[in-house]
Amino acid sequence: MINVGIAGASGYTGVELVKLISNHPETKLCAITSNSYKGRSLTDIFPSMIGFGRGFGRGFENMILEDFDIQSLSGKIDLMFLALPHKISMQYVPILMEHNIKVIDLSADFRFTDAAVYEGAYQEHTSKHLLKQSVYGLSEIYRDQIKASTLVGNPGCYPTSILLPLLPLLKEGLIQPDGIISDSKSGVSGAGRSLSLSSHFCEANESFTAYKIGNHRHTPEINEILSIHSQQKVSITFVPHLLPLTRGMLSTIYARANDNVTEDKIRKAFHAYYGKEYFVRVLDKNMYPAISHVRGTNCCDIGFHFDEKTKKIIIISAIDNLLKGAAGQAVQNMNIMFDLDDAMGLNSFQGPL
Amino acid sequence: MINVGIAGASGYTGVELVKLISNHPETKLCAITSNSYKGRSLTDIFPSMIGFGRGFGRGFENMILEDFDIQSLSGKIDLMFLALPHKISMQYVPILMEHNIKVIDLSADFRFTDAAVYEGAYQEHTSKHLLKQSVYGLSEIYRDQIKASTLVGNPGCYPTSILLPLLPLLKEGLIQPDGIISDSKSGVSGAGRSLSLSSHFCEANESFTAYKIGNHRHTPEINEILSIHSQQKVSITFVPHLLPLTRGMLSTIYARANDNVTEDKIRKAFHAYYGKEYFVRVLDKNMYPAISHVRGTNCCDIGFHFDEKTKKIIIISAIDNLLKGAAGQAVQNMNIMFDLDDAMGLNSFQGPL
Amino acid sequence: MINVGIAGASGYTGVELVKLISNHPETKLCAITSNSYKGRSLTDIFPSMIGFGRGFGRGFENMILEDFDIQSLSGKIDLMFLALPHKISMQYVPILMEHNIKVIDLSADFRFTDAAVYEGAYQEHTSKHLLKQSVYGLSEIYRDQIKASTLVGNPGCYPTSILLPLLPLLKEGLIQPDGIISDSKSGVSGAGRSLSLSSHFCEANESFTAYKIGNHRHTPEINEILSIHSQQKVSITFVPHLLPLTRGMLSTIYARANDNVTEDKIRKAFHAYYGKEYFVRVLDKNMYPAISHVRGTNCCDIGFHFDEKTKKIIIISAIDNLLKGAAGQAVQNMNIMFDLDDAMGLNSFQGPL
Amino acid sequence: MINVGIAGASGYTGVELVKLISNHPETKLCAITSNSYKGRSLTDIFPSMIGFGRGFGRGFENMILEDFDIQSLSGKIDLMFLALPHKISMQYVPILMEHNIKVIDLSADFRFTDAAVYEGAYQEHTSKHLLKQSVYGLSEIYRDQIKASTLVGNPGCYPTSILLPLLPLLKEGLIQPDGIISDSKSGVSGAGRSLSLSSHFCEANESFTAYKIGNHRHTPEINEILSIHSQQKVSITFVPHLLPLTRGMLSTIYARANDNVTEDKIRKAFHAYYGKEYFVRVLDKNMYPAISHVRGTNCCDIGFHFDEKTKKIIIISAIDNLLKGAAGQAVQNMNIMFDLDDAMGLNSFQGPL
Repeated sequence: MINVGIAGASGYTGVELVKLISNHPETKLCAITSNSYKGRSLTDIFPSMIGFGRGFGRGFENMILEDFDIQSLSGKIDLMFLALPHKISMQYVPILMEHNIKVIDLSADFRFTDAAVYEGAYQEHTSKHLLKQSVYGLSEIYRDQIKASTLVGNPGCYPTSILLPLLPLLKEGLIQPDGIISDSKSGVSGAGRSLSLSSHFCEANESFTAYKIGNHRHTPEINEILSIHSQQKVSITFVPHLLPLTRGMLSTIYARANDNVTEDKIRKAFHAYYGKEYFVRVLDKNMYPAISHVRGTNCCDIGFHFDEKTKKIIIISAIDNLLKGAAGQAVQNMNIMFDLDDAMGLNSFQGPL
Repeated sequence: MINVGIAGASGYTGVELVKLISNHPETKLCAITSNSYKGRSLTDIFPSMIGFGRGFGRGFENMILEDFDIQSLSGKIDLMFLALPHKISMQYVPILMEHNIKVIDLSADFRFTDAAVYEGAYQEHTSKHLLKQSVYGLSEIYRDQIKASTLVGNPGCYPTSILLPLLPLLKEGLIQPDGIISDSKSGVSGAGRSLSLSSHFCEANESFTAYKIGNHRHTPEINEILSIHSQQKVSITFVPHLLPLTRGMLSTIYARANDNVTEDKIRKAFHAYYGKEYFVRVLDKNMYPAISHVRGTNCCDIGFHFDEKTKKIIIISAIDNLLKGAAGQAVQNMNIMFDLDDAMGLNSFQGPL
Repeated sequence: MINVGIAGASGYTGVELVKLISNHPETKLCAITSNSYKGRSLTDIFPSMIGFGRGFGRGFENMILEDFDIQSLSGKIDLMFLALPHKISMQYVPILMEHNIKVIDLSADFRFTDAAVYEGAYQEHTSKHLLKQSVYGLSEIYRDQIKASTLVGNPGCYPTSILLPLLPLLKEGLIQPDGIISDSKSGVSGAGRSLSLSSHFCEANESFTAYKIGNHRHTPEINEILSIHSQQKVSITFVPHLLPLTRGMLSTIYARANDNVTEDKIRKAFHAYYGKEYFVRVLDKNMYPAISHVRGTNCCDIGFHFDEKTKKIIIISAIDNLLKGAAGQAVQNMNIMFDLDDAMGLNSFQGPL
Repeated sequence: MINVGIAGASGYTGVELVKLISNHPETKLCAITSNSYKGRSLTDIFPSMIGFGRGFGRGFENMILEDFDIQSLSGKIDLMFLALPHKISMQYVPILMEHNIKVIDLSADFRFTDAAVYEGAYQEHTSKHLLKQSVYGLSEIYRDQIKASTLVGNPGCYPTSILLPLLPLLKEGLIQPDGIISDSKSGVSGAGRSLSLSSHFCEANESFTAYKIGNHRHTPEINEILSIHSQQKVSITFVPHLLPLTRGMLSTIYARANDNVTEDKIRKAFHAYYGKEYFVRVLDKNMYPAISHVRGTNCCDIGFHFDEKTKKIIIISAIDNLLKGAAGQAVQNMNIMFDLDDAMGLNSFQGPL
């Protein structure tokens, strides 16, 4: 049994972690924290949880959101998930690590290798020394490092949807690192539970728009990882959009293949990387991902179209932004860190609706 | 030409009034006010308006939201629409009336005849003396009084959807005033543009719930009007619900007919009241209203099912909560006050989508 | 291990059964049938299932939809779920029972005790002799009979949402059997996967309407069960509506309490019936069900408002129409028939989104 | 007064034309045809139209859908809109023209200059001789030709959203004709009123997917027009997607500017082409189109982001697919053909909701 704590349990990502940890056969949820709702129970914040766990040892009514207090956490938990805003995470992580508590941080604070890149996009980094030991938690790509790690910087949702399809092709030298475009679309839950006009029902419903063109903070995260694996500086064009639906994300990625590349070579590369992976599904020719196919699952679906004459490749990937894009991948990383099957607690099949 | 001002033009109801007045052939929009956004243009708040009116004399870019200032309004406008919260309206109305500006108030402040009923549901009424001269703006029922009035208390959205179908039957003695139930459902725009968790996209989308059971403030408004027309105290059971859509409202109303009532008598009563009305459509047997049929129109659709054996009658009504339920009926009332056709500026046909 | 077959596996209810049975720890899915898609795999029909079960012993790619063939089923399965249209079910049930295969039928064919009532609403019943031995599968109310049964007529979705809240009050004599009204609202998945204009996206989206007023076939089903438990003929007023969402159902029920009934007595009755039930959650005072709170779960949430002066009671219930309203309750009934915990395979917690 | 006929009036585009023509001050709707619903009234098919026009001279109840019959049309109408599937249109057009009836055809049949391109994407063209005289109805670009024309091939929705932003930049030599990508997203109404699984509410709702990658028939239409205006063969990459909303379309277009191009030159080009146009709104820097800003209007909104260092340009355009993408642009073309203001009957302002 892994004793688990979740910081920021009252947000959409935090409560998704609560759900996954509660359904996981090898974990025990021992502590939950919240800044906004401390002292209240989870069922106060999420009435859908009322009564759940009755007689089944979960009892969400009795789970009280607390302040983050290292004295109370120390010795009680093996692993802490941080579902907190960036800047807050970097304050807690050193303290947790001193107390030998492993950390999976869902903020951006430990995703970067180069502190300067982080600081260019966010703000001063006050725990730079930990960046060397933190591992980027893109499970399928960094599995070995994650297994050995005590601190994981869990990837952003957009980066996950873009890196999983691109990395095999870039690493195998099948596509050109220049001129890559990702036209990405996210459901509204990606913006969290905080109130804002763009998440107001009447504004988001029956609409669709691009936002933060040219300055979304996931761009440097994507570029850093792509550059590391291409051994050259990569700079993609990334345009995020807001979909009128709750959960799900789809990226349509445009790239150019190198000479002599064939559809078959592309397919073989995907299968070499993901053929044995539970959560990456490479679709057959002429099949493309849909958000409904991955909603409620930890899957990343990948489909592609290749024009051998023009060498243009169009790759489509879809994930559930709250699962493979956040809490699901975090639990997958926990499984890897604790030598469990990747899919444990994540493999209940979700139907088509 | 009627010179019009709109107070509270930055809310959903206010901007709906701006839209209607801008499209109306006999009005000129001369002043708009806003507490939250004063000094800014309408197109700052609503980018969908950008460029509209260019070359057509409307020029929303140049319409600046101002403070409510009677010196600037006096002599400039003939009529003021108040799309303000209750309590604020009752401060402005006496001032406007002193300056001979007619008022259509969309708050609850001037809907009640009996100040005590108002005060039971809202708060102290500081302009009680005006309640005698204010007219309840249910256009089809109070047309003669509205025509002669200088102050109209525009009805609430739920009351409009409930009173229009019930009043003909109650006034003609066809149904029992006891035991009436209205199970009503509203789109999210009814809650306005202010941010709240219940209007957050992820909370309202794919959900449906009842709210304020037993204590919604529209209940005393409905009861007061029903009681006046039944010449006895009527107290309905009213349960509002929140629909996962932007615009529209539907009420399913349950009542019991008196002895000797037939389906034919019911239909004849509806036709006597509404047969010549442009905005109330009484549907044929076995046809029932749908929100999509009234969205974007000022119509109230009414359909009913009558069981002659049990004497139970089920009446369904549908309106667009922002039009017949608010801004549309307000403009209809303006038309009546200024001796124009009810439908002027409101009769462009909206298609099925 | 229970060996299970599912007939009609290509519909929304059928595939929901496939999902539940696949995730259930004590069942094995041995046969799936479909009339429209025989010879094709489940993943052909539902691409969201592609790749699922890889390496986990489920392998939906290899599950082929077959004709219903008793020779192939006999000896292979212990239990058959029939997710078929009425009239088809009554042809298969006698055959299955002759071969000692237990049946949970999700059509209306075996829900009625009185064949005449069935025939009044549907058509001639060709297996009347089995009605005596079939049990109405409202799990919490008929648990003992279900446990002993070999044929369960699984309740309709609307009846489940209406009977669960009403039966405790009627059986305990707390409400009057006369004049009960249920204003019920269902998501679009209730209409199934067959194409129809009313399920066309552009027609259902942003709309809401009542349908089949006075002649919905669930009315006699509800009335028969209510009458049995009230020991008098009960005839409710039932109006179904179509919500613009995929999954979920909410019923707002209006009744009148008997003299001397108090809020406390009502609450105690609910707790006496459901206090130990996993899937019926009785909410605290001033809390009301929402579809988002039950979506993805097998729960029926119940909240109520009681006015002691007028004796009027308003009860709200919410279920997921595909789970407690169909496939979930069917699996719960299987658990009961095979002496497993009600919640087995149904108790994974679903988060708020 | 222009006497107008509409063929295919029972589809979504057809009925949108009925709406626009009914609200237009200078037209009279004289004939409507439908293959599927002949003999029935418009209000049979679209109950939202019931009662509309009562007392206002429109009377949709009395508008009967007829067979296409040239004898009955000849002499009665000046202009026919054809909202028919391709292949059907090319049969009717020669007949209409022989009878001196002007035609605006909303199918693909008369959009192409080169019959071979049409035949590559569709099927044999049986009225090739008319292609020379037909004009491509992209109003702002082909105004002069439309004015002089008797046959207009109204553009597809995707082409409209892509050509309007690209043509000024290509014609002025500001961007490279190679390597242009359009990632386009359409609401479900673009697929029409015919039933299909992909337009089934439960399949489209809460989902998003790409479709017809590499083989959508709008690609050759776009390429032909771009090639004509670039004086070289242009071949764009076009990926259409399906949005979970009813009305609206947004295209995100990626291109590369030529050397020496500046943001200012791009903006000036847009203003030179569209500064005096009523229906093309070029947004200020850092503002981007949203579907909600154009829904219900005939506008095409254009915003762009330009990186002077990399010379990459991202252009976003949004239209209402049923208006500027179909019926609205058709009416605009009618206005041009009959020397009326472009905006007549199309300029009522739609609010933000």
